[in-house]
Amino acid sequence: MSAYPYGDAFARWRNAAGEDWNAYTRHSFVEGLSNGSLPRACFLHYLVQDYVFLFHFSRAWALAAVKADHPGEMKTAAATLDALVNHEMPMHIKTCAAEGIDEATLFAAREEAETLAYTRYVMDAGFSGDFLDLMAALAPCVIGYGEIGARLNREATSDTYRPWIETYAAPEYQTVCAEVGALIDNALHHRFGDDPWHAPRADALAGRFITATRLEVDFWSMGLRGA
Amino acid sequence: MSAYPYGDAFARWRNAAGEDWNAYTRHSFVEGLSNGSLPRACFLHYLVQDYVFLFHFSRAWALAAVKADHPGEMKTAAATLDALVNHEMPMHIKTCAAEGIDEATLFAAREEAETLAYTRYVMDAGFSGDFLDLMAALAPCVIGYGEIGARLNREATSDTYRPWIETYAAPEYQTVCAEVGALIDNALHHRFGDDPWHAPRADALAGRFITATRLEVDFWSMGLRGA
Amino acid sequence: MSAYPYGDAFARWRNAAGEDWNAYTRHSFVEGLSNGSLPRACFLHYLVQDYVFLFHFSRAWALAAVKADHPGEMKTAAATLDALVNHEMPMHIKTCAAEGIDEATLFAAREEAETLAYTRYVMDAGFSGDFLDLMAALAPCVIGYGEIGARLNREATSDTYRPWIETYAAPEYQTVCAEVGALIDNALHHRFGDDPWHAPRADALAGRFITATRLEVDFWSMGLRGA
Amino acid sequence: MSAYPYGDAFARWRNAAGEDWNAYTRHSFVEGLSNGSLPRACFLHYLVQDYVFLFHFSRAWALAAVKADHPGEMKTAAATLDALVNHEMPMHIKTCAAEGIDEATLFAAREEAETLAYTRYVMDAGFSGDFLDLMAALAPCVIGYGEIGARLNREATSDTYRPWIETYAAPEYQTVCAEVGALIDNALHHRFGDDPWHAPRADALAGRFITATRLEVDFWSMGLRGA
Repeated sequence: MSAYPYGDAFARWRNAAGEDWNAYTRHSFVEGLSNGSLPRACFLHYLVQDYVFLFHFSRAWALAAVKADHPGEMKTAAATLDALVNHEMPMHIKTCAAEGIDEATLFAAREEAETLAYTRYVMDAGFSGDFLDLMAALAPCVIGYGEIGARLNREATSDTYRPWIETYAAPEYQTVCAEVGALIDNALHHRFGDDPWHAPRADALAGRFITATRLEVDFWSMGLRGA
Repeated sequence: MSAYPYGDAFARWRNAAGEDWNAYTRHSFVEGLSNGSLPRACFLHYLVQDYVFLFHFSRAWALAAVKADHPGEMKTAAATLDALVNHEMPMHIKTCAAEGIDEATLFAAREEAETLAYTRYVMDAGFSGDFLDLMAALAPCVIGYGEIGARLNREATSDTYRPWIETYAAPEYQTVCAEVGALIDNALHHRFGDDPWHAPRADALAGRFITATRLEVDFWSMGLRGA
Repeated sequence: MSAYPYGDAFARWRNAAGEDWNAYTRHSFVEGLSNGSLPRACFLHYLVQDYVFLFHFSRAWALAAVKADHPGEMKTAAATLDALVNHEMPMHIKTCAAEGIDEATLFAAREEAETLAYTRYVMDAGFSGDFLDLMAALAPCVIGYGEIGARLNREATSDTYRPWIETYAAPEYQTVCAEVGALIDNALHHRFGDDPWHAPRADALAGRFITATRLEVDFWSMGLRGA
Repeated sequence: MSAYPYGDAFARWRNAAGEDWNAYTRHSFVEGLSNGSLPRACFLHYLVQDYVFLFHFSRAWALAAVKADHPGEMKTAAATLDALVNHEMPMHIKTCAAEGIDEATLFAAREEAETLAYTRYVMDAGFSGDFLDLMAALAPCVIGYGEIGARLNREATSDTYRPWIETYAAPEYQTVCAEVGALIDNALHHRFGDDPWHAPRADALAGRFITATRLEVDFWSMGLRGA
């Protein structure tokens, strides 16, 4: 059993990301969700870009299924893709619809440079590397949102962004995070054996995680900047 | 509405495949399923290879999600992947388990040359080409099995392979075929406009369909040859 | 023969890019190369990032060879890759070496967000789309540098950045631009026939070109910002 | 220095392939090249399919450049691609031209199942896996031909196929083999450290080599079968 609820690899990579991890998970956008000070226009701008993000993020999870080495990896990747396309994205669509933004408008939104940079970095990590390169690039988003959701669920002082917080604090989402953490740990052991942390590729994988974490910081900043 | 239940593109490609289409859908392996004369050992050999095939076929549908151009294509590809991994493959696993073959054995089965040729051709069609190249290579399997299932459901003179026949004759599977047919027609119009049949790429796409049809013929012959 | 030296597609896409094209080709970084006012530190920062860029750009041309439809496309892609890896990149290495920066340092340089965004966008265009998606994303860099080099060769009022200007104004590089322009025009006709400009995908391809042009603007701005 | 001229990985994988390696390198097609008994029609059938093979093999080397981890891997992959497209393929074209078969005919040749199986297996190894998966799938062809050429150069009792033999026995080709052997050894150490032979992926990589070796056996048999 892992010392950290989201698995060993996540714990190590999170530690390696150091200040970048804090800059991401405690970004002023996040604090604005927590205390309700985030302007609605910034939240909506974020939400529209996050829809575009999730379209490409779904493509990245589909790519994980393409690169799966055995049925276990395939099943988790297929289930995660299904959850994204049929559950997380519809939530964005519903929230945006309540604000008068329909799905066609969402899909046609001009992609911000930060959205493009992050999503294409993840896709190329998967295309150019292997399953683990892709997982290391996907982890900060999937599991980081779980960590943020769980913390804000305890600490939030405002109900303004409660539905967003509850989405990621919910047991269903926390379970996804734990499954992805386990998927990564298993994939590392499957490919590198008992001690994957000293394989020559260990630094490169941590580097993928750190780069993706920085791209998350930029994504929040893009949200704050507004449309 | 299309003159043919599985869509316009399928009707045209099927026609272009001519004798190859008949060699596939009326192969002696298929006739052996219909009249019960197919030796059990051949059926099992086919089933084991078909499990390996479906693992890669799932990867190909995942690749379709990677290459989706808009949310509609994404949703159908994700749903088809889910159906394959969580419904069609478990059926193979269950049938094989009843014969004393567990999933680890299935996954570790030595891949026959015919399985390898077909699956990798489909993957490369998707990697090297675009969404349509992939669809044209996937269509003979998905929709061809629907056509075979529907015909055998009317014509079979033996109950020996009735469960196999009913799987593909079932309304659920026939609906998948209709959805895939519509997905292809829509994808063609989305990319080539009103008259996709005279686009310069039309012949190349029909060629993908025909090659995959021939690889289906080889796959049945591999089954007949036995282990 | 084309009315414009770099081919028909380039002329149309350049026109579609409008103000974005001017923002790229007449960026203050470019004007600083022309009149010598560009600070050396900015130029070096650009050069280091451009080395990282060219590594990924080489990967993108290699991907073009992967996606080539016939020997003609293959030969041009392979020759361009060879020119990049064995001629353009060594020039960067030599220039940087004269400034005391060796190749290992170049390759280990921390990639700026603008470099990452642009390079991964191009790679994903190729992975997700087809040969033309990739060409449309590659064209602003390859041919745009040819246009900038040719103009600065006539207009530059300073010799400070003359070697850079001459690299892209040189007949060898201008020939590469003409060949790439012809490659794109031929690829369009090969896939869409006599009138590729009204194919449904025409707008999407122009969109690829425009997005890449905007990423070029960001790349110059990154250079100006300095290390 | 390696005990075997083509490197450590090749020596180990060759050993792991055992009888399959002999079935490939001492196939009756090869013995027919050596003693001149190979019917000309078989040789030509092989040569036409080998042209088609080399087109896809070039795509596979281009994919190696796409997946290169550092400039050294990139340069070797780009140089090998250039050698294939601009040197080895023109030799096929010239030989076939002397027999009245032009390049358009070659490129339009109907691909045999064995050609398709082999080439697409290699492409998918690269797309689905990483650089090493691709190298393990490419090695039997590149280096195996070097071993065959060197042996036949010593043992051949007929001059009928002397030009073919000399192509692969030539110092230029033997150097390519040595470079590819070194590329693979370096890539293994770069990714797995000092003892790559006991990494969990070692068996899977040897498996890639063995599968590709078997596909070489089928390729010769296809040649013998004739058109």
